[in-house]
Amino acid sequence: MGEMSDELTALYTDQYEFTMLRSALADGTAHRRAVFEVFARRLPDGRRYGVVAGIGRLLDALERFRLDDDSLAFLLDRGVIDEPTAEWLASYRFTGDIWGYAEGECYFPGSPILVVESTFAEAVLLETLTLSILNHDSAIASAASRMATAAGGRALIEMGSRRTHEAAAPAAARAAYIAGFTSTSNLLAGRRYGIPTAGTSAHAFVLLHDSERDAFRAQIETLGRGTTLLVDTFDVREAVRTAVEVAGPGLGAIRIDSGDLPALAHEVRAELDRLGATGTQILVSGDLNEHAIAALAAAPVDAYGVGTALVTGSGAPTAELVYKLVARSTSDDPSAPLIGVAKASTGKPTHKGRKWAHRVIEDGVAVAEVVTTWPDIDRPGRPLLVPLVQRGDIVGREPLEMARERHVRSLAELPPAARQLSWGEPAVPTEYNGAPAYSADGPDGRRATAVEAERTDERRT
Amino acid sequence: MGEMSDELTALYTDQYEFTMLRSALADGTAHRRAVFEVFARRLPDGRRYGVVAGIGRLLDALERFRLDDDSLAFLLDRGVIDEPTAEWLASYRFTGDIWGYAEGECYFPGSPILVVESTFAEAVLLETLTLSILNHDSAIASAASRMATAAGGRALIEMGSRRTHEAAAPAAARAAYIAGFTSTSNLLAGRRYGIPTAGTSAHAFVLLHDSERDAFRAQIETLGRGTTLLVDTFDVREAVRTAVEVAGPGLGAIRIDSGDLPALAHEVRAELDRLGATGTQILVSGDLNEHAIAALAAAPVDAYGVGTALVTGSGAPTAELVYKLVARSTSDDPSAPLIGVAKASTGKPTHKGRKWAHRVIEDGVAVAEVVTTWPDIDRPGRPLLVPLVQRGDIVGREPLEMARERHVRSLAELPPAARQLSWGEPAVPTEYNGAPAYSADGPDGRRATAVEAERTDERRT
Repeated sequence: MGEMSDELTALYTDQYEFTMLRSALADGTAHRRAVFEVFARRLPDGRRYGVVAGIGRLLDALERFRLDDDSLAFLLDRGVIDEPTAEWLASYRFTGDIWGYAEGECYFPGSPILVVESTFAEAVLLETLTLSILNHDSAIASAASRMATAAGGRALIEMGSRRTHEAAAPAAARAAYIAGFTSTSNLLAGRRYGIPTAGTSAHAFVLLHDSERDAFRAQIETLGRGTTLLVDTFDVREAVRTAVEVAGPGLGAIRIDSGDLPALAHEVRAELDRLGATGTQILVSGDLNEHAIAALAAAPVDAYGVGTALVTGSGAPTAELVYKLVARSTSDDPSAPLIGVAKASTGKPTHKGRKWAHRVIEDGVAVAEVVTTWPDIDRPGRPLLVPLVQRGDIVGREPLEMARERHVRSLAELPPAARQLSWGEPAVPTEYNGAPAYSADGPDGRRATAVEAERTDERRT
Repeated sequence: MGEMSDELTALYTDQYEFTMLRSALADGTAHRRAVFEVFARRLPDGRRYGVVAGIGRLLDALERFRLDDDSLAFLLDRGVIDEPTAEWLASYRFTGDIWGYAEGECYFPGSPILVVESTFAEAVLLETLTLSILNHDSAIASAASRMATAAGGRALIEMGSRRTHEAAAPAAARAAYIAGFTSTSNLLAGRRYGIPTAGTSAHAFVLLHDSERDAFRAQIETLGRGTTLLVDTFDVREAVRTAVEVAGPGLGAIRIDSGDLPALAHEVRAELDRLGATGTQILVSGDLNEHAIAALAAAPVDAYGVGTALVTGSGAPTAELVYKLVARSTSDDPSAPLIGVAKASTGKPTHKGRKWAHRVIEDGVAVAEVVTTWPDIDRPGRPLLVPLVQRGDIVGREPLEMARERHVRSLAELPPAARQLSWGEPAVPTEYNGAPAYSADGPDGRRATAVEAERTDERRT
């Protein structure tokens, strides 16, 4: 299911990582220094920025990336590894360095979101787990951020647990919270991450009772007048009148979960005000996405409940981040130099070399994402890579609120076009070693892809 | 993360289930008998059938749906429940009955995929967990089944772990296997569910080495000539020649992960044959979906590796199943009659009443999905609901292979149009108590929605 607890994470992994390890241990290349990089070749169609999420979860998972006897026996039994590999794995701990974009930071095509430096053996094993966490959480956060912009400061309740894998649900709630959501319906997210939880009743509760009035009375008696009554089981207008009769004008909120929400919101607001319930809030839910939220901007709505569209990334359920070897040493001598490497055939281009990243800020506005193969970038703005793991020690943990606050700052810094919901280009251009690194591809300008990588000098086939 | 183990599952739940329980315990309605039903109002746009998956996982999760002291303390501390509710929950076990469509079975709009009968108190708590599991797994299986049809008997390797939540990955592999995939890259799915695993190497392994030849040699030496060599790191044609030079004509397979796959497959096949490697298989991967697989039908491909499109449901990442109260007793007297109930306002229609389902088969072909509010359906074919839980005892467990075989039979039974990949209507019409229950909505015929439910007689507001 998904309790983080003390469960080991090393089998959340694709088989080929262990077979590569096995072959590389056999010929000694496993001990070459290696730099792997996580980046997105492009943003989802039409998106103007992405949001990094999952860093905290990744650090927790990394701490438990070990192999116990049962796991090793399984791998041996399947013939995935041999005895020497099992011996090496028995004492596996990641002892290298990891830098990354801090959680909540915005990113663009080619942003080196994570840089993992270690031996090949240690780092190759982390591919799947790293990508699973960052791809999922960043996809959700990227969608959530647009919803928060659309909501314009109104409350946003994450309600999507039922529309995603049960263990993905608390992670989705966490990512949504980082990107601006106010609360979640998911209790495990409340317990595990301290996120505020919300939720009072469903249609089933009204239907269980002999009348809507009975149901409202039961709810008010146990949850108090501050609760939220669901008013669209039968007739919304009638239910609103019943709700105020039962609860009085101090009723906390009503929820409308179906129907023509903008029209209903106006009608219900007028009726509530007429009944003296001027402080009663209106919560709307039901297949909302960022566009439906934006369309309700002029309606008297106080809060939005968002489910399916959020947990499925609003059309982009994965961030499509990749984990690529970009540099490795020329031998297993620890002092051997690093050389940049990259796949060079058609398709799936990668920029070789260990990267640094810097967001260029001019007059408070981000104007470029500069990615270089050297550390010193003499431009106004700020460096983007922060240390997460140093010589195996996790140094990048932080309270969730810090990521949430960081996202507000990072988004505010982007040019205004970033906050448009319409299809567009990445809001900030990526420059790679001084040249445009990712450019529009095709006449519609919807996809940004990397320029094709040059064949590497290191190729000696 | 996601080990099933002995982790409790009761907090994989939306808060409102516990607040409804609290209110219903207070006014006594919690003890009314209740029937909840899981169904889809429609299939994803253009889909002709859905595939039920997740039943086995749900039964495992149900067995661990209990609240320990820590969970109760959390709920009390947050004010979600009160002391009487905590006392009731401390001994919670589901003691009711559950029927459902067997895993691997095809379904249509309105199919009562799961029927949960118990008290309201016991059954209301299962909504989120049930939907999370069935929505995720069925979405994956539904996409996987179309891919298996497109593959036409060629091997299908599930490789999507990196593009979904880490704990969703093994569940996705399991669902794909039920719907016709051959193996998975995910090791945890291999260990937990006994699914065959696959995978040998990535571009990183080639790039780690001083030459492609060195990399191939290392891999052959440890994994043997039967391994799969990845040939698209630099030049595919050159790599194929190197591969056969290193491995000999007995090389197991080569994998192409990028580029113009149909053209490359033809070229590589010719080259392999010319080199005498007539038995060497060709595996292709790289952003394949059911349409790309179908487009490779005429190419000399032996196996497909499918990732992102599979784990994201190929455009439909959730099955959008709902869990609705459809009947409840008129009092908490165990002998009180059940009455059908349904939300009656505009939108989100539901058919009230406890349902039975029967697939009408004529001359070996499914012609109707008959859903009735009575158990005896006198039509040729077979009943669809099987007992899963009886008086709290899990009776529906079965080996995964049975679900996999069932899917083959269930799909073979559908009319030929079901296996077309193009957009279409549900392949089998749903009849509700003798009338068409779900009909096409709109001129394009792409969406099937339920007819609007009648207001219930039981409404007495």
